[in-house]
Amino acid sequence: MSKPFVAVLMGSDSDLPTMQVTLEVLKGFGIRFEAKVTSAHRTPAATHAYVHDAEERGCKVFICAAGLAAHLAGAVAGITTRPVIGVPIDCGPLQGHDALLSTVMMPGGVPVATVAIGSAGAKNAGYLAAQILAVADDALAVAVKEERARSAAVVEAKDAKLQEKLANL
Amino acid sequence: MSKPFVAVLMGSDSDLPTMQVTLEVLKGFGIRFEAKVTSAHRTPAATHAYVHDAEERGCKVFICAAGLAAHLAGAVAGITTRPVIGVPIDCGPLQGHDALLSTVMMPGGVPVATVAIGSAGAKNAGYLAAQILAVADDALAVAVKEERARSAAVVEAKDAKLQEKLANL
Amino acid sequence: MSKPFVAVLMGSDSDLPTMQVTLEVLKGFGIRFEAKVTSAHRTPAATHAYVHDAEERGCKVFICAAGLAAHLAGAVAGITTRPVIGVPIDCGPLQGHDALLSTVMMPGGVPVATVAIGSAGAKNAGYLAAQILAVADDALAVAVKEERARSAAVVEAKDAKLQEKLANL
Amino acid sequence: MSKPFVAVLMGSDSDLPTMQVTLEVLKGFGIRFEAKVTSAHRTPAATHAYVHDAEERGCKVFICAAGLAAHLAGAVAGITTRPVIGVPIDCGPLQGHDALLSTVMMPGGVPVATVAIGSAGAKNAGYLAAQILAVADDALAVAVKEERARSAAVVEAKDAKLQEKLANL
Amino acid sequence: MSKPFVAVLMGSDSDLPTMQVTLEVLKGFGIRFEAKVTSAHRTPAATHAYVHDAEERGCKVFICAAGLAAHLAGAVAGITTRPVIGVPIDCGPLQGHDALLSTVMMPGGVPVATVAIGSAGAKNAGYLAAQILAVADDALAVAVKEERARSAAVVEAKDAKLQEKLANL
Amino acid sequence: MSKPFVAVLMGSDSDLPTMQVTLEVLKGFGIRFEAKVTSAHRTPAATHAYVHDAEERGCKVFICAAGLAAHLAGAVAGITTRPVIGVPIDCGPLQGHDALLSTVMMPGGVPVATVAIGSAGAKNAGYLAAQILAVADDALAVAVKEERARSAAVVEAKDAKLQEKLANL
Amino acid sequence: MSKPFVAVLMGSDSDLPTMQVTLEVLKGFGIRFEAKVTSAHRTPAATHAYVHDAEERGCKVFICAAGLAAHLAGAVAGITTRPVIGVPIDCGPLQGHDALLSTVMMPGGVPVATVAIGSAGAKNAGYLAAQILAVADDALAVAVKEERARSAAVVEAKDAKLQEKLANL
Amino acid sequence: MSKPFVAVLMGSDSDLPTMQVTLEVLKGFGIRFEAKVTSAHRTPAATHAYVHDAEERGCKVFICAAGLAAHLAGAVAGITTRPVIGVPIDCGPLQGHDALLSTVMMPGGVPVATVAIGSAGAKNAGYLAAQILAVADDALAVAVKEERARSAAVVEAKDAKLQEKLANL
Repeated sequence: MSKPFVAVLMGSDSDLPTMQVTLEVLKGFGIRFEAKVTSAHRTPAATHAYVHDAEERGCKVFICAAGLAAHLAGAVAGITTRPVIGVPIDCGPLQGHDALLSTVMMPGGVPVATVAIGSAGAKNAGYLAAQILAVADDALAVAVKEERARSAAVVEAKDAKLQEKLANL
Repeated sequence: MSKPFVAVLMGSDSDLPTMQVTLEVLKGFGIRFEAKVTSAHRTPAATHAYVHDAEERGCKVFICAAGLAAHLAGAVAGITTRPVIGVPIDCGPLQGHDALLSTVMMPGGVPVATVAIGSAGAKNAGYLAAQILAVADDALAVAVKEERARSAAVVEAKDAKLQEKLANL
Repeated sequence: MSKPFVAVLMGSDSDLPTMQVTLEVLKGFGIRFEAKVTSAHRTPAATHAYVHDAEERGCKVFICAAGLAAHLAGAVAGITTRPVIGVPIDCGPLQGHDALLSTVMMPGGVPVATVAIGSAGAKNAGYLAAQILAVADDALAVAVKEERARSAAVVEAKDAKLQEKLANL
Repeated sequence: MSKPFVAVLMGSDSDLPTMQVTLEVLKGFGIRFEAKVTSAHRTPAATHAYVHDAEERGCKVFICAAGLAAHLAGAVAGITTRPVIGVPIDCGPLQGHDALLSTVMMPGGVPVATVAIGSAGAKNAGYLAAQILAVADDALAVAVKEERARSAAVVEAKDAKLQEKLANL
Repeated sequence: MSKPFVAVLMGSDSDLPTMQVTLEVLKGFGIRFEAKVTSAHRTPAATHAYVHDAEERGCKVFICAAGLAAHLAGAVAGITTRPVIGVPIDCGPLQGHDALLSTVMMPGGVPVATVAIGSAGAKNAGYLAAQILAVADDALAVAVKEERARSAAVVEAKDAKLQEKLANL
Repeated sequence: MSKPFVAVLMGSDSDLPTMQVTLEVLKGFGIRFEAKVTSAHRTPAATHAYVHDAEERGCKVFICAAGLAAHLAGAVAGITTRPVIGVPIDCGPLQGHDALLSTVMMPGGVPVATVAIGSAGAKNAGYLAAQILAVADDALAVAVKEERARSAAVVEAKDAKLQEKLANL
Repeated sequence: MSKPFVAVLMGSDSDLPTMQVTLEVLKGFGIRFEAKVTSAHRTPAATHAYVHDAEERGCKVFICAAGLAAHLAGAVAGITTRPVIGVPIDCGPLQGHDALLSTVMMPGGVPVATVAIGSAGAKNAGYLAAQILAVADDALAVAVKEERARSAAVVEAKDAKLQEKLANL
Repeated sequence: MSKPFVAVLMGSDSDLPTMQVTLEVLKGFGIRFEAKVTSAHRTPAATHAYVHDAEERGCKVFICAAGLAAHLAGAVAGITTRPVIGVPIDCGPLQGHDALLSTVMMPGGVPVATVAIGSAGAKNAGYLAAQILAVADDALAVAVKEERARSAAVVEAKDAKLQEKLANL
């Protein structure tokens, strides 16, 4: 069987600028991934076929990004039993509030692991996928821990800069 | 070809008490209908098969009721090009606000004709289906007009009762 | 009797940039239409007269766009028994959230077929009108199906472009 | 010309329990009033006719109560140039949030003087009508001031009771 | 006693650009007015003194504009029994949603006649004040009716322009 | 000068059941307090007089509870420069969402220390007042710390009970 | 090393009735779990100690339930790098809307896999934990698929019952 | 023991532009302060250590600013029993609505004194801290009163300018 990978699905190519960071986080962890533009509404059959096939080929986690009445994550979650992470995109007049509710309020039996609206969520989708794969991959688990430590160091560096600024006032 | 009919789909049998009135409105107009419990998330293949088959058998309008992250209407709208009417059900802690946004905020190309949350919407789904069929059915168009006149008479009867009450104060 | 047509009403000429796409979708399907600026509040009598007359002249579907306390669709729905499609416009400080609720939460007996707020809804109003007319117009039904297939092809083309991009990384 | 009066319109007789207090406030001030069940959507012609006629007969202020996509106040405001007070009714799954936005967010040129959702608003609709009529009626102005003083006394009486309670702890 | 006038109060001078149109509407009707920057929170005593004095000097209607936790209208309504019109200003991160609720949800006994958030409301505050004064001023009542007719003519002119545009397509 | 105390103001005696717990928390810490029903809108002069007088008599912290367009805390904060704690009450159709925004969104210069809507906020108003007084009262600071420890012990006792339950499954 | 398990944390024992179903889902899959009442605010040190220790002892997934300003899931996510599932509890006047936003809107780097508010989310937290563990546990993956099939069968049984009902009308 | 001070914590250095005004208000009152970038999620241990140490060193009030699922104020409030002031930052797609609910809806026993979202709140956090310290510092109490008088004078100056403008019209 082929090596595990993560599938990153987007309802529209306008979601790509937001989702670029997801791909970068996955790449940073050395996680194999596929990315695909596919629509729950305009190409439901293609979506269904891809998800089925991807699961067969070893896809372990699906990440789905969509805006407005964001059904992509829920539709994928209804096809596969692999973990599905949903990223609500902040487009349209309601700025992602609609996408958040459409993604997170799934009925009992078909969960979507929802992260924050927009760019913070896009980043966290990558981290969450890494954490899920790390449950059974000790090397990845170590990498995730190291990345967390680096992110703490970034905060501390920012604080150091603030202290300098305050000292010079 | 068989006579036209309306398909009334519900995401859960807990939607039936709300949707009963839809069936009654359709029956009142003598419109043939089928009703079915089917889930966008738990039985996506069955939903797909039914919608395909129903369209083949002469279904002209789909009415879809669902609560929470209400995807049923959108999922059906992605399968058929017949008009799809969405009824957001007022269940769960957000009382249908989530279902409304999940139903109405459809992306360009795949419309869902959304009506009000809950019982008012359930009633109107029946009327809207009748209005759509009446576009090409003059007898039904007359019946819809007569029903509207009856509903005006109900308002006037209520006003008459109020006037009586006020007169007796 | 004259050929059927769709009437596209706008509460203000500031709605025209959003509603332009509705007119283009209708034109794309070869559907006859009229467009009119008329206000539920400032020109109620003119609105009433137009709707009555339009229905007489063969108008089969009304599309009504308005922002803020968007009453136009509801007012038209109270005059005619033809299907009325409501497009909530995303203007003002609440960005169309007010227009959505004012359009969709119609009481029992007088439905408005509500689509998404803003540009996605404007596009879908055109598609929904086409779907409604296609119930009794087989040639139009075929055209609607072909257009759906084209929109699926657009998604697939976008995906192809993404795959190319990923391959070149 | 006949004596001035206030017209209290309700979209449905289910609004009467809420609006009873409006009638009582008006009666308390000795203000003549008429009450009527009439619907912006189901009986638009009757509503139009009544408002026109009422204005002719000396109606100085209109109070309109409606729930959901509450158009009654706006519709009346489009017919008359007398002050129109709107009371959003707290019915349906959104508990009057929809009625508030449908009533208050009127476009420039056609104001509705909106009061609070539900029972507080129903009471205040009566007081506001009295204040408006009192602009040119000095006796009524005095009565409004006295009523305000009484309401202050009620607060003070409640405080006295609280002090007693605390003293006995 | 001096001639009646309208007092236009603003919580901050940053509200002036929005409220400029209120002053223009009043001026257009030849209604005398005073405008004042005064704060319910920062200058409560000055606000109190002004309102008392203004009422004594013949102020018949107060218009109060404020943003955020907009208390100005409510505070003024607690001091005077003249009609108080509240304009929620669309400033701050919640874009006037906070100001709307702070202005309209007044408890029973102390009404604020609330109009739309922001510029539409600012315009309507002027019209509503005119309508209130016109209850006892027949010349003003005629002027208000004429202005309404002009606003209808504006809509019709916009429609004429749209028809021209469509004819040239 | 008299000993310091806390003033607990309520806009209505219907707030008392919610605010009872505030009084109990204060009593538990041995903090002197006064409680008063007074309204920003119905008894503004009495409110003003009480706050002025209370500050003179040694009131160090004001706690103000109100629902709907909850102005009491803001009005008091405009009179005194002592810390003012605002408790939004969960009454009316919007369940305290209006009271929260009316209380917390104060303009720069006049803060209200806002706590949670309803009963959790009522309890925390008492704790926050104690924490504020404890800034300069070491014995009270110790008591606050002990109370926190007790509340931790309550959580641990609840956990112990859960463990027992799970063991017996 | 010890066998993997799931830790189910609750901010309060009042969350237990909602979270009971999570425990039942885990039990149904034969997944070992621990449940604990611990508070991000009242017992932060105990929470920290438990999470650290649980991770050491083989906890692979954390499920955290909390209401209001629901910080528990976020606090746990800041301590561990194992996947953290957040269940917003529908308590308090905002019915879980606050808990949803407090749980899902996590900043980049520290994801919380958020599920629906209340009982649907509680059920799905169990399923999502099972899906995550099943990534590296083929037997569990089969069990999850079987459970999904059973849930589809339940929908179909409900539909069968509806058909029977309709046939007997 | 060292002199009292206020600690101003920020979840991210992107909060500094908003929080700059807090530091200026504190400096204006001559209140000693420390500022620190520290994260409830990325550096929980450092946050905990700092708060503990700061309290030991004489910190009397904590001010915590954070956006999105804003846990910083709540996390600090769980560590110390000194008053904690929370400033919800208006970043991200929900513009601080999420941060407001995450900050203010604290459970009973662990209060956060919440101020307005964004810049108004940042300013008021400084004033509230000054008011809290002034409870036991009469000189500071006088300074706070003088500052309030200055802010009233600013409003009056703005009004004077408006009067001039109106006079010149």
